[in-house]
Amino acid sequence: MTPLAPADPGPAPWVKSIPLEMAPPSLKDNTADVDRVLRALKKEMQTDRVAADFSLWQSFPRVLRDSHYRVDVSAFEWQGGWHVIDVTPAAAHHAVYGIAMDLGTSTVVLRLLDLASGKRLDERIFPNPQIEIGPDILTRIHHAAKTGGLQGLQTLLVRRINEEIRAMAHDHHIRPGGVAGLAAAGNTAMSHFFLGLDPYFICREPYIPVVNRPGLVRAGQLGLDINPMAPVLVFPNVGSYFGGDLVAGILASGMTLQKEVSLLVDVGTNAEVVIGNSEWLMACAGAAGPALEGGVAGMGMMAGPGVIDRVRVDPASTVFEIHTIDDLPPVGICGSGLIDLIAGLFTAGMIDLRGKFVPSRCGGRLTEADEIRSLTIVAPEQSGTAGPLVLSQPDIDGLMRSKAAMYTILTTITQTVGVDMSTIKRFYVAGTFGAYIDPRSAITLGMIPDLPLDVYVPVGNTSLEGATRALLNRAARDEIDLIRDRITYLELNVNQAFMNLFSAAKFIPHTDRSLFPSVKVPA
Amino acid sequence: MTPLAPADPGPAPWVKSIPLEMAPPSLKDNTADVDRVLRALKKEMQTDRVAADFSLWQSFPRVLRDSHYRVDVSAFEWQGGWHVIDVTPAAAHHAVYGIAMDLGTSTVVLRLLDLASGKRLDERIFPNPQIEIGPDILTRIHHAAKTGGLQGLQTLLVRRINEEIRAMAHDHHIRPGGVAGLAAAGNTAMSHFFLGLDPYFICREPYIPVVNRPGLVRAGQLGLDINPMAPVLVFPNVGSYFGGDLVAGILASGMTLQKEVSLLVDVGTNAEVVIGNSEWLMACAGAAGPALEGGVAGMGMMAGPGVIDRVRVDPASTVFEIHTIDDLPPVGICGSGLIDLIAGLFTAGMIDLRGKFVPSRCGGRLTEADEIRSLTIVAPEQSGTAGPLVLSQPDIDGLMRSKAAMYTILTTITQTVGVDMSTIKRFYVAGTFGAYIDPRSAITLGMIPDLPLDVYVPVGNTSLEGATRALLNRAARDEIDLIRDRITYLELNVNQAFMNLFSAAKFIPHTDRSLFPSVKVPA
Repeated sequence: MTPLAPADPGPAPWVKSIPLEMAPPSLKDNTADVDRVLRALKKEMQTDRVAADFSLWQSFPRVLRDSHYRVDVSAFEWQGGWHVIDVTPAAAHHAVYGIAMDLGTSTVVLRLLDLASGKRLDERIFPNPQIEIGPDILTRIHHAAKTGGLQGLQTLLVRRINEEIRAMAHDHHIRPGGVAGLAAAGNTAMSHFFLGLDPYFICREPYIPVVNRPGLVRAGQLGLDINPMAPVLVFPNVGSYFGGDLVAGILASGMTLQKEVSLLVDVGTNAEVVIGNSEWLMACAGAAGPALEGGVAGMGMMAGPGVIDRVRVDPASTVFEIHTIDDLPPVGICGSGLIDLIAGLFTAGMIDLRGKFVPSRCGGRLTEADEIRSLTIVAPEQSGTAGPLVLSQPDIDGLMRSKAAMYTILTTITQTVGVDMSTIKRFYVAGTFGAYIDPRSAITLGMIPDLPLDVYVPVGNTSLEGATRALLNRAARDEIDLIRDRITYLELNVNQAFMNLFSAAKFIPHTDRSLFPSVKVPA
Repeated sequence: MTPLAPADPGPAPWVKSIPLEMAPPSLKDNTADVDRVLRALKKEMQTDRVAADFSLWQSFPRVLRDSHYRVDVSAFEWQGGWHVIDVTPAAAHHAVYGIAMDLGTSTVVLRLLDLASGKRLDERIFPNPQIEIGPDILTRIHHAAKTGGLQGLQTLLVRRINEEIRAMAHDHHIRPGGVAGLAAAGNTAMSHFFLGLDPYFICREPYIPVVNRPGLVRAGQLGLDINPMAPVLVFPNVGSYFGGDLVAGILASGMTLQKEVSLLVDVGTNAEVVIGNSEWLMACAGAAGPALEGGVAGMGMMAGPGVIDRVRVDPASTVFEIHTIDDLPPVGICGSGLIDLIAGLFTAGMIDLRGKFVPSRCGGRLTEADEIRSLTIVAPEQSGTAGPLVLSQPDIDGLMRSKAAMYTILTTITQTVGVDMSTIKRFYVAGTFGAYIDPRSAITLGMIPDLPLDVYVPVGNTSLEGATRALLNRAARDEIDLIRDRITYLELNVNQAFMNLFSAAKFIPHTDRSLFPSVKVPA
């Protein structure tokens, strides 16, 4: 698996600091201050389409005279024109900064960028403060309908973002106003909360967002503590259920730059799947995720210190080799660990084709209470919690449903577009799921197709990565709307055909073993 | 003299109310609210370049659903794109209103327009409230430099404008936000005060405004009580001494639409003169005005009730026939009355070629005090004031200088561009001066060239008229920047040649009588 190359700022940044040197005014050239700057900017950028918002004009006379008509103009390009953000006395280093943001339901990530060099200077990750209103989107949408609810949600979020931005700016000695651009990718509801737009109709048939393409918003309009004139790019959505986070994911994967057909999978609360190339894109989503996120399996949790992220089960001795994040005593297991574990249990013959415990192979580690069987994975004395870590039969059943749903969705979408799954040359796996998952284990379970391992490409936090690229590169930014407009959304029809596929996929690896030739099924 | 035809709204209004009917959303068409409106607007206006500012989005979901997707969109065209001002449920009459404004140093005039029909619905005229800070621009510029001074000046002005706009809107049953555009023409300093921009460098060499072309400003940015998203068009200036009022005057005259060369004269504190046609424009200004405005002649005042605006002096009997505004007892005399009076005195032989009283013809009405001769024009018993209205020798001398300056400026500018003054086919005279002046009297004095009377065209309040045209008609609006960019400003060089011309013009009508063949010089 090759990690994604860092985003290339490329030949066309669209938020820039532009040094301008002007002749001072004279009786022969009495051009006004604003017009003088715009004239110089036109010449420098070789376009007539330059503009400076009225709110900036007041500052021009002082800055021009104090700087002896040598200034740095921060400006951004939009629809072919250049828009001034601010004008400051020329500095030795014409620095300009930006923030890329992953606007997650649970977690927000900010990345500070030097827009001139493309360097990633810093990153902050923190829980979405709206969790105090409700952990899930639906609770927040209901809260937004109360008096002041929507504004309260937006304020919570923006205030926290501002704190983190201020801290980063302080650490990096960046002046107020030096942050001249922000790009944010989130799901449709989160984008609405961020923009202070009412998500009321998002969750009601026919599920209509207030806006699909937010276009150009200024930081000051959102109360963000960066330059108030800075452009804020909020990734567009296709509808209530296909948000800007996924558009960012498609951008980050680069799949739309290739002629070959690729797949992109993002597993969160839902599993979102996109297939396509430089000419077409089809997307769908289904409830394949829950068992893979924290909270479903008894010992399941989100990746974090002490969480089991990799497991090997020795097929002969059935001994577990357990790895935890930061090598701390284990406290739970995340999605990648769970997939490793259950694949290992299958290979060791400790569970059967249906995912049921095989008592003869499990031995004394298998216990039963209230007719529910559980396997002890970590004994109390090795555990980082007070008690043992156990995997119950319902935990496995949950994963079996998730993996079956995932494979069924992949089968359905590839069949719909008429692409043979075995011919896929790149299969991008997003998120922490993609970063930690061992595709060998997922193939063993029959969760993902039996492709050469190097086909699977972890693409990390694609919301953050897509936002970064869009902020650094004009071509990437312009690609966003093309991506959005090209997506065909496949409504998953849970009919008999789907249910038949799903039932066949509820075995390890599958009822049709020929689909998984590389998987060794124990005798 | 034919009055200017009322502005034709023409085929291209640029602030409009556009009725849109949309299909309600469905599972098959889940386009978001904002995108749905913009899609319909694109189709209606047949352009892809449509935009709605972020600040409007919040209102869309409610308006669309309440109106069953039948709305009126107020929008304006700017640089080829249409910008939404607001979206309201469809009304029977898709009305949209605008305000044209003459932003005078002394007087502000507001005109309420129906932008769909071009109808002039109302007008308000009131003293510029900044007079309480200082009657003249220079005092206000000095005041602006004090802490809070500039903002105080702007607030004074905008608050008063808002009061008048609210009153007009109330009288005409116009909803808040129904006024969707404003165009303002004023001199460079007044435009700066209106925009809250520091005029500090306007009156200091090399006389640099903050901005020449204010471009697009939104009403909300200025605190105006109309729709906050409404475009505010502030006429551009050429420099500190050639303001948007004059650009508006050129626009209003229509001189740039003609192949023939025309002259435009605007007499205020200065006399501003423009010469040109559809291909070129030259402008200059000089201190020719003071004697023609109120405040210089002892009995001089601005046109108003009881003010003498027309005078006939019977050449035989030397009896005065006096006309006052509203036929009230006379209280003073305005510029047009003064010109009539002094021309009449000359024709009747009561003053000589140099403008000096001829005691033998003046008789007992001529008095002398402190070596200053004065002529009683209105006896105390006919006067509207307590005492008599008198014209002093210094009053006449002042007018003689003004008229000589005016003729010298006209001579200089026509000679500079190589146009024979006698070939001018249209001579536009702006302002109340132009509205009331009898060109026959001005010719008699040698103030303006001896052209057929129908060459002189009064064009009224050209600031107001220019603002009206710019607001009603896109072609007129687009003409503004062309006019501004085409103006060559002639710096009047007060050298020996100028002084020679000036001296020759200080006689009635002129030392060279052949220039004024129609003027009968009394024996």
